[in-house]
Amino acid sequence: MYLARVYVTLKPTVNDPQGITVLGGLKSLGFETVTEVRVGKFLEIRLNEADRKRAESEAKEMCDRLLANPVIEQYSVELVDLTE
Amino acid sequence: MYLARVYVTLKPTVNDPQGITVLGGLKSLGFETVTEVRVGKFLEIRLNEADRKRAESEAKEMCDRLLANPVIEQYSVELVDLTE
Repeated sequence: MYLARVYVTLKPTVNDPQGITVLGGLKSLGFETVTEVRVGKFLEIRLNEADRKRAESEAKEMCDRLLANPVIEQYSVELVDLTE
Repeated sequence: MYLARVYVTLKPTVNDPQGITVLGGLKSLGFETVTEVRVGKFLEIRLNEADRKRAESEAKEMCDRLLANPVIEQYSVELVDLTE
């Protein structure tokens, strides 16, 4: 059993209106030190898969086929072994 | 300068319809090993703040006041020193 922690973020060159809105909200609450906010998705996916390599390649395939839009988004995957 | 990486997830007891939908999508694409999906938010916040402790407490205050709904969500914060 593996837990795949998947981070999907907009590519650095892509405009992030949601992040800009959060930045404005934080500034208006008095957080003066904030200079930039980027908002992404975070998914925790449990895989009933014993082999680490296979779990990783499955998680990446899920990102390519469903979870991320490759035109504007990038992703990274971290695996946690739940049997340890 | 610090980068606060903020993870906002639903509390474990809270139902996650978005995660259930993603799970169904992955299964229908043929990913048979997936057993559970939870979807959360991931924010990258740049702070113009030299002190690590202060950066961390600011990031947590942002979560409490704006970024997370304490009734149904929990959060965690990781700090990355950008001056290193």
